[in-house]
Amino acid sequence: MTAIAREAGVSVPTVSRVVNGRSDVAPGTRARVEDLLRRHGYRRRSPAPSAGAALLDLVFHDLDSPWAVEILRGVEEVAHTAGVGTVVSAIHGRSGAAREWMRNLRARASDGVILVTSALEPGLQDQLRVLGVPLVVVDPTGSPGADAPTIGAANWAGGLAATEHLLSLGHRRIALIAGPSRLLCSRARHDGYRAALEAAGLSVDPALVVPGDFRPESGFAGCTALLDLPEPPTALFAASDQMALGAIEALRRRGLRVPEDMSVVGFDDLPEVRWSAPPLTTVRQPLADMGRLAVRTVLRLARGEHPGSPRVELGTDLVVRCSTAPPAAQSSASRIA
Amino acid sequence: MTAIAREAGVSVPTVSRVVNGRSDVAPGTRARVEDLLRRHGYRRRSPAPSAGAALLDLVFHDLDSPWAVEILRGVEEVAHTAGVGTVVSAIHGRSGAAREWMRNLRARASDGVILVTSALEPGLQDQLRVLGVPLVVVDPTGSPGADAPTIGAANWAGGLAATEHLLSLGHRRIALIAGPSRLLCSRARHDGYRAALEAAGLSVDPALVVPGDFRPESGFAGCTALLDLPEPPTALFAASDQMALGAIEALRRRGLRVPEDMSVVGFDDLPEVRWSAPPLTTVRQPLADMGRLAVRTVLRLARGEHPGSPRVELGTDLVVRCSTAPPAAQSSASRIA
Repeated sequence: MTAIAREAGVSVPTVSRVVNGRSDVAPGTRARVEDLLRRHGYRRRSPAPSAGAALLDLVFHDLDSPWAVEILRGVEEVAHTAGVGTVVSAIHGRSGAAREWMRNLRARASDGVILVTSALEPGLQDQLRVLGVPLVVVDPTGSPGADAPTIGAANWAGGLAATEHLLSLGHRRIALIAGPSRLLCSRARHDGYRAALEAAGLSVDPALVVPGDFRPESGFAGCTALLDLPEPPTALFAASDQMALGAIEALRRRGLRVPEDMSVVGFDDLPEVRWSAPPLTTVRQPLADMGRLAVRTVLRLARGEHPGSPRVELGTDLVVRCSTAPPAAQSSASRIA
Repeated sequence: MTAIAREAGVSVPTVSRVVNGRSDVAPGTRARVEDLLRRHGYRRRSPAPSAGAALLDLVFHDLDSPWAVEILRGVEEVAHTAGVGTVVSAIHGRSGAAREWMRNLRARASDGVILVTSALEPGLQDQLRVLGVPLVVVDPTGSPGADAPTIGAANWAGGLAATEHLLSLGHRRIALIAGPSRLLCSRARHDGYRAALEAAGLSVDPALVVPGDFRPESGFAGCTALLDLPEPPTALFAASDQMALGAIEALRRRGLRVPEDMSVVGFDDLPEVRWSAPPLTTVRQPLADMGRLAVRTVLRLARGEHPGSPRVELGTDLVVRCSTAPPAAQSSASRIA
């Protein structure tokens, strides 16, 4: 503490006040001291050391997100091996639930927190820091703002690979059902789509880009809108598997076949799309691997070690199944529509 | 303890030896004393009381079972409201993993255990009893043998409803892709199918019943075998949604349409089958409700209260979507096959 005080140019009692989460410290001073404490690997002991009963908290926004169980699978595997229990919570974006969770976290003296898609308000993130509980954000949606190591996926490269695959099959009118534009991951997938088209010497037709929210209903609506265009696309890239399933249902309702009348590529590679009709060509996000890496990172932080890179992107892969094919000699989609 | 000793006709030190999990007690005596302890609502204190940090352990065989997240959703919701943390583990049927889990459970002084599909060897169940940790089994597969309250679903009624639905549409050649016959739930669904056919005055054609293991691959294989029959069925009931999805893929590969050429009913109502192609008619198991009831039961046991009924079956409902229709005037399936 003396060393930190000297380096920060403050008194030892001031450092102590920061460590103990007291409010009577100027914000600039607090930030400087906290930064030094972090850099020196200092970690405040949990308030109620729990005699070897190691726990980490895995916090989701909602447990009905289809990739929740994939991330959990990776987290549980590594945590179990390390003798650490995984406490799972869903806080539904309600601040009441989040505050209650924070009280419970304190009581059980959790050794670390893995947040999925950083659904925690900044005030609670500050409380975690004061408690000295290390935080890692697993973030398949790439939302910004977490003051903690984040683990995401290569969304831009995934959007590029999906679109290049459709181009290589001979498609030229390729639509995009995009994700919510407030999320970084949506913007990255969209930019990858655009980059592939531009590299092929094609311009982006704004009529072929429709908005979605990652849920199947929005894929259904987006695909319906695309089919109502004077000149519909012959292929579409949906920025989530769930939207791809919604799009396939919209096609089925019109009596159109996948891939004969329309090629469809998704994004995520959820377990169920291996058995969609037809099995879906998609971009695989390594969700379980993201969970595994999150545990290793948070345990490293809990031991006072450096977390490694503050922002990791794991690779995405194109998985080719049965929902993509060359366009029909004459576009059946536009013929039938 | 004195009262228990008197009622059991043993000495107080013997009761104490039972309470402390010592091995120098005759099995019959132990059973009698344990029974009395239970009936008097006695519960041994957790070995390391954890200052209000209430935890319960939710144990799955595997986290890749598609209904795991549905059960977890119900468990987390009720536990969170009660201020209890939900520690999730997967023990993969390996006894090493189960023993390790038991060690961790002891260290974190968990207040209760919810097992999904009783994947715990009897020796470990005994240890739980000795530790005084209450146990509830959530059991959508109905496997027998747990010496603890179990919460399942009305499988027989579900099999009956699925088959009656197909009969009411006019089908007479109705196939069953059954689940593993070692599981009670498979036998109950099978018996429900048989009861519906018999009530309609039809005999069960053994050629129309094929085995499966609940996974999509077995639905694919089962449906393929049915299509190769000299006289294929016009409708099929798959004893799990995943097998129904596999069957639909087998039909698609043969160029057959659902429901025009074959009606398909599943069992489970997993979230994803709302968006299968076509959306699946299925029997809903109230998985989240089963999880909710399990938490209430285990917390009641932890307070030393009576758990209510030792074996609860929650109701199942038929959900009619787009995968079932009356048989074609002439059976297209047999025409094309």
